[in-house]
Amino acid sequence: FRMSIADFTVRSPARLTLGVFVLAITIFTSLLAAPFSSATGEATPLHDALFTAVSAVCVTGLTTVSTAVHWSFIGQLIMLIAAFMGGLGILTLASIMSLAVSRKLGVRAKLMAQKSMDSSGASALGEVSSLLRIVILTAISLQGLIALFLIPRFYVLGESVLSSIWHGIFYAVSAFNNAGFTPHSDGLVPYETDLWILIPLMGGVFAGSLGFPVIMVLLAHKFNVKKWNLHTKLTMLVTTILLFAGAFLWLVFEWSNPRTLGDMTVGDKVIHALFASTMTRSGGFNLVDQNDIHQVTVLLTDALMFAGGGSASTAGGIKVTTIAVMFLAIMAEVRGDTDVKAFGRQIPQGTMRVAISVVAMGGSLVMVATGALVTIDESVGFSRALFESISAFATVGLSTGVSQEMPPAGKYVLSILMFAGRIGSITLASALTMRHRNSLFKLPEERPLIG
Amino acid sequence: FRMSIADFTVRSPARLTLGVFVLAITIFTSLLAAPFSSATGEATPLHDALFTAVSAVCVTGLTTVSTAVHWSFIGQLIMLIAAFMGGLGILTLASIMSLAVSRKLGVRAKLMAQKSMDSSGASALGEVSSLLRIVILTAISLQGLIALFLIPRFYVLGESVLSSIWHGIFYAVSAFNNAGFTPHSDGLVPYETDLWILIPLMGGVFAGSLGFPVIMVLLAHKFNVKKWNLHTKLTMLVTTILLFAGAFLWLVFEWSNPRTLGDMTVGDKVIHALFASTMTRSGGFNLVDQNDIHQVTVLLTDALMFAGGGSASTAGGIKVTTIAVMFLAIMAEVRGDTDVKAFGRQIPQGTMRVAISVVAMGGSLVMVATGALVTIDESVGFSRALFESISAFATVGLSTGVSQEMPPAGKYVLSILMFAGRIGSITLASALTMRHRNSLFKLPEERPLIG
Ligand SMILES: [K+]
Ligand SMILES: [K+]
Repeated sequence: FRMSIADFTVRSPARLTLGVFVLAITIFTSLLAAPFSSATGEATPLHDALFTAVSAVCVTGLTTVSTAVHWSFIGQLIMLIAAFMGGLGILTLASIMSLAVSRKLGVRAKLMAQKSMDSSGASALGEVSSLLRIVILTAISLQGLIALFLIPRFYVLGESVLSSIWHGIFYAVSAFNNAGFTPHSDGLVPYETDLWILIPLMGGVFAGSLGFPVIMVLLAHKFNVKKWNLHTKLTMLVTTILLFAGAFLWLVFEWSNPRTLGDMTVGDKVIHALFASTMTRSGGFNLVDQNDIHQVTVLLTDALMFAGGGSASTAGGIKVTTIAVMFLAIMAEVRGDTDVKAFGRQIPQGTMRVAISVVAMGGSLVMVATGALVTIDESVGFSRALFESISAFATVGLSTGVSQEMPPAGKYVLSILMFAGRIGSITLASALTMRHRNSLFKLPEERPLIG
Repeated sequence: FRMSIADFTVRSPARLTLGVFVLAITIFTSLLAAPFSSATGEATPLHDALFTAVSAVCVTGLTTVSTAVHWSFIGQLIMLIAAFMGGLGILTLASIMSLAVSRKLGVRAKLMAQKSMDSSGASALGEVSSLLRIVILTAISLQGLIALFLIPRFYVLGESVLSSIWHGIFYAVSAFNNAGFTPHSDGLVPYETDLWILIPLMGGVFAGSLGFPVIMVLLAHKFNVKKWNLHTKLTMLVTTILLFAGAFLWLVFEWSNPRTLGDMTVGDKVIHALFASTMTRSGGFNLVDQNDIHQVTVLLTDALMFAGGGSASTAGGIKVTTIAVMFLAIMAEVRGDTDVKAFGRQIPQGTMRVAISVVAMGGSLVMVATGALVTIDESVGFSRALFESISAFATVGLSTGVSQEMPPAGKYVLSILMFAGRIGSITLASALTMRHRNSLFKLPEERPLIG
């Protein structure tokens, strides 16, 4: 049985991913729709149950009903388990693929090669399952660590032991998996200057958004940058740039906005800006109402959300390495170089193709969804519809309230978008890794004009 | 002298393009700022003169002041000459580059090869100058043809002979060069059902937006599709799809909008939709107020404007072949093919890099400009700022009035954007064609994860 799962995994990871996610969403939708999940004891309508299940499994964090008010403790527990399993599922599936990529050889090809040579036979499978063990153990350890920081704080703030443990675990899982759900009805606003809570949350979201391939390299080599592979270098560099540039711009744009930072001390302004920048690229927690920020900050948020986090992470978006490759491609074009280079390595031409596919697919999905939302209810306006669509596609979870305002049709549109945004990148990556057919013959090349 | 121009052209087309455009804009700005250009006989402020000069030379068609009301006849004539020369400049520069591409050999390399062999010596230069002759003659003939259709119509409608000739030539130049200026204060609204005027305009805009490499192939081989090259096939296919899909969606979205199509006959609705779809991808003429269309139609317009027309054409945007390459890349990824194929030809990997550079650069320019506009005046709103930015970047010229409402700072932002949108794609293309340095040694390849 274990053998056949591994076999299926390596043979058709795209179909496997799709199947696993659809199954999980179906189960969690039924559980959330049941009367025991809601605070009032009444059944939850399908569109809200489905939306919440998709949002949790895809670790998006958008909500159509208040997490704290609508759901019972059981309902919240189901959401948390869904987010935990969703995050773990993404990490394990993505890690299998990244293993295959890092070996520059499909796992399947490797399996077949070893079988035909009739040698050890189980070693590739062993490699996959030991990888899975490492991924799961590391993920659980990191979430436990975040919870250990948070639990005492909630206790100190006057919550009961049980409540502190529950909230500590909830926020730890929600942060590391970049889910962004909050069990408090006011969200994080009451803790907006509480560094004891904000720093573990930011650390958790940041770690989760790097992606497993990077976390493994960091655990192995720490900050010995020379030993990092290209993927780790690019991810860390772009993540750092986006984090600080995003925080700086957010700070400048909102500095004197009376609805957000206007009346705060300089220290609090800086904390808010760093928090906003960290959370925008996928965490989804927020300290200020997204309806209160300036239009230019909305645009900045749109861009950072669309960019997203690291590959094979619980973050969404088009991913920071895609940003890096786009930038490097432009630099190469401007310089007139034949090759795209970074850190003394040449980036394969095929990478450009994946990058353009990811960007074009993401842009199209967001555009069609935005169009659908303003058609369903024109009163939400273009800017808010776009914001919510990017947030759903990039599984961020920041919201101006459109998810709650929308009639059921709009909720289904956003559910599909969250699902497509989450699954799309994984299956595209898998298409890249696993299914490259070699043509039997080469066609003659012909170059169309571009641009 | 002629020799040295040709030499400079082939050696550094990017710098040449930049120089020519800056010079032209400077001259036309001074002419338009002079008192004789304005209807009142007063000097025009720099920001309006510069904006109009950039808009004309870059064949954008956006205006900060009414073309019919603000400018004198001389001012309008200057604008027309600027648009005519701008269009011709784009076509000739782009055609030289496309010649180099189609020969799969830099013109410069070819020149040097021939010189060193000490054979005919002038034949490559002859090729360039005969190409230029063909481009200029074809462009003027096509514009003359459109004028010949239009002049009698204006006469029949009661204008004087001189006025009919002037308006016929103005609209012909404005249409073929995709400039979109109108010499009437109500624009084309009085002719909104006049097919005798609308069809020549649509034909002119369509022909201009295909690009010269395609026009030459069409003139040589007519509709003998088998003889078309890949570039022509892709351009014609995507242009046709965008034209009819755009018209269909525009028709559906606006069908019952009382502010636009609501009260019209079915025939008039169809004409309006076809006209809107044709003009949106770069022509810039409009029959309805862009503030009256639904939000979803705004989004459709944004997308079509950003897409733009053919390479080496007077149209702007990221170009239809870029759209084609993005679509083909996604299809190849989904299928798991190693090669990106179209019409029995393989598309070179380097093309993906140009495509991603063009898309990333375009998206970034539009985003930064939109951010600047909402910062300068938040009251214009995100949607209208984005619309105007895309219109400026893609040199379309459709407007919701933001160009006119903006304070001078906003007009400068849009001027820079029109210039960058027009020049960017040409110089990028030139970087691709002319300046590929071969590395002395190959770096080891390493593939980052993407998506
Ligand atoms: K999230
Ligand atoms: K135009």
